Amino acid sequence: MSYPEDLREMVDRHLETVSFSHGAGPDGADTTGLDEAMRYSLLAGGKRIRPVLCLATARSIGEPLEDFLGAAAALEMIHTYSLVHDDLPAMDDDDLRRGKPTSHVKYGEAVAILAGDGLFAEAMGALATAPAPAGRVLEAVSLLSAATGVEGMVGGQYIDVSAQTLDADGLRHLHSLKTGRLIRASVEVALALGGLDEAGREPYRRFASLIGLLFQIVDDILDVTGSDEELGKPRGSDERHGKVTYVSLYGLERARALGAETHQQALAALAGADGETDDLRRIADYIYSREQ
Amino acid sequence: MSYPEDLREMVDRHLETVSFSHGAGPDGADTTGLDEAMRYSLLAGGKRIRPVLCLATARSIGEPLEDFLGAAAALEMIHTYSLVHDDLPAMDDDDLRRGKPTSHVKYGEAVAILAGDGLFAEAMGALATAPAPAGRVLEAVSLLSAATGVEGMVGGQYIDVSAQTLDADGLRHLHSLKTGRLIRASVEVALALGGLDEAGREPYRRFASLIGLLFQIVDDILDVTGSDEELGKPRGSDERHGKVTYVSLYGLERARALGAETHQQALAALAGADGETDDLRRIADYIYSREQ
Repeated sequence: MSYPEDLREMVDRHLETVSFSHGAGPDGADTTGLDEAMRYSLLAGGKRIRPVLCLATARSIGEPLEDFLGAAAALEMIHTYSLVHDDLPAMDDDDLRRGKPTSHVKYGEAVAILAGDGLFAEAMGALATAPAPAGRVLEAVSLLSAATGVEGMVGGQYIDVSAQTLDADGLRHLHSLKTGRLIRASVEVALALGGLDEAGREPYRRFASLIGLLFQIVDDILDVTGSDEELGKPRGSDERHGKVTYVSLYGLERARALGAETHQQALAALAGADGETDDLRRIADYIYSREQ
Repeated sequence: MSYPEDLREMVDRHLETVSFSHGAGPDGADTTGLDEAMRYSLLAGGKRIRPVLCLATARSIGEPLEDFLGAAAALEMIHTYSLVHDDLPAMDDDDLRRGKPTSHVKYGEAVAILAGDGLFAEAMGALATAPAPAGRVLEAVSLLSAATGVEGMVGGQYIDVSAQTLDADGLRHLHSLKTGRLIRASVEVALALGGLDEAGREPYRRFASLIGLLFQIVDDILDVTGSDEELGKPRGSDERHGKVTYVSLYGLERARALGAETHQQALAALAGADGETDDLRRIADYIYSREQ
């Protein structure tokens, strides 16, 4: 019952081949440093949950994985861009990410802002050239734009930084935007590229929404129970920022029970999907077990 | 010989209808403030050169203008996002833009960063739903991603902020990325959506590259000759930031001669295009005459 490391390795091998810059021109104008900053954050490791979800979904619906690598990379670029911007001094002001100095600490704020902007643009470019019929690719582009826009990731981050007073539903709403939408899009982009019909997509979508929720519950628990080393950043960062979390709202014990329940619901949703869903189940198990 | 104000009014009317947020939920989570910040910058006025170029190109190739409004809006959103990020304290640190407080002055840095990110995502979403065959829309998405990525706008801004030592070719390269690519894309996106063949596109592309160059030459001249009021920001901002410009490189007189020459080359390129190019010529004349 382990994480699909074969898919993660595929993603990592592909990401290592990615280059964004044509290099220095004879005229001295040079984007190499920007490329370096972008790849510094993109290649910082991690479990690659979003691209692995994309590939696992492709495998589940019987599609050739290599055709989904561009889309998978796009998802990781978007995720990375969001981390780089979230870490900025004006936002969460975090110095460490995955145990390494954050982009603005290493390259300065201006380059970090541009590295995030660049990753976003290059992600859209990578997705737009996915080898699938144009109508399917275009649907994937729309899904990803919506997942990252005002009623998606960026809107969720806005709610988070603007310190709004939230009840339990509001917290769920915040996270469904901030992290849930991109996790769901990781599955939905693969369904769109694969051309699955609406009825076939529904169980996958429910599964994807639930693991997005599960991911955040576990993240909130880890913020108070994990070691600095496990987290790659100082523990209690949410608490210090006065953020509402599943733990601050429910307490640790009930947050854990909610995690267990959500994990079971995700597996139940997946049981309704056609296809070989073993990898997707392993991802759900991994997300859940991070806090064990 | 005046700017095509009818097209600008079409763009402004369309932009005023744009809304990015679903509003406040019953749970308190609310993206309205982000929507407000995005529209504050988007609706700050200006000549709307990029969307007007897009519509003028559509008219020139005989396409219905209303089908190009989404793409036109996307171009203005991308331009606006780039201004919001460029104005940030870590970048050019400008307090005024078009005579109004910049986004970070009005809403704070965190919201300004997110407003830029949100405009970028929503621009891609607006373009992806343009009413044209999927293959054409997808080509437009690819063009716009490339124009805004590392070998486009963001890369140009990186070269600009990283204070590289540039000769005349390097300066031209910087601006061809930073402002030229998006101006060119404003024409190319319309050509792609209209499905024009390669041979038909070539004169338009040459024209678009040349007015991109012209735009920057005139901008550099205005930075030293314009009044604060005309510029909407303090004069001499480039000089204060120690930036290489066409004026710092060539002197005012030669920069003006280069502008006149580039204007003539743009009109010559346009003469080779099929179609009713009168609006495009007016735009070139306007860009040139800003400094008169």
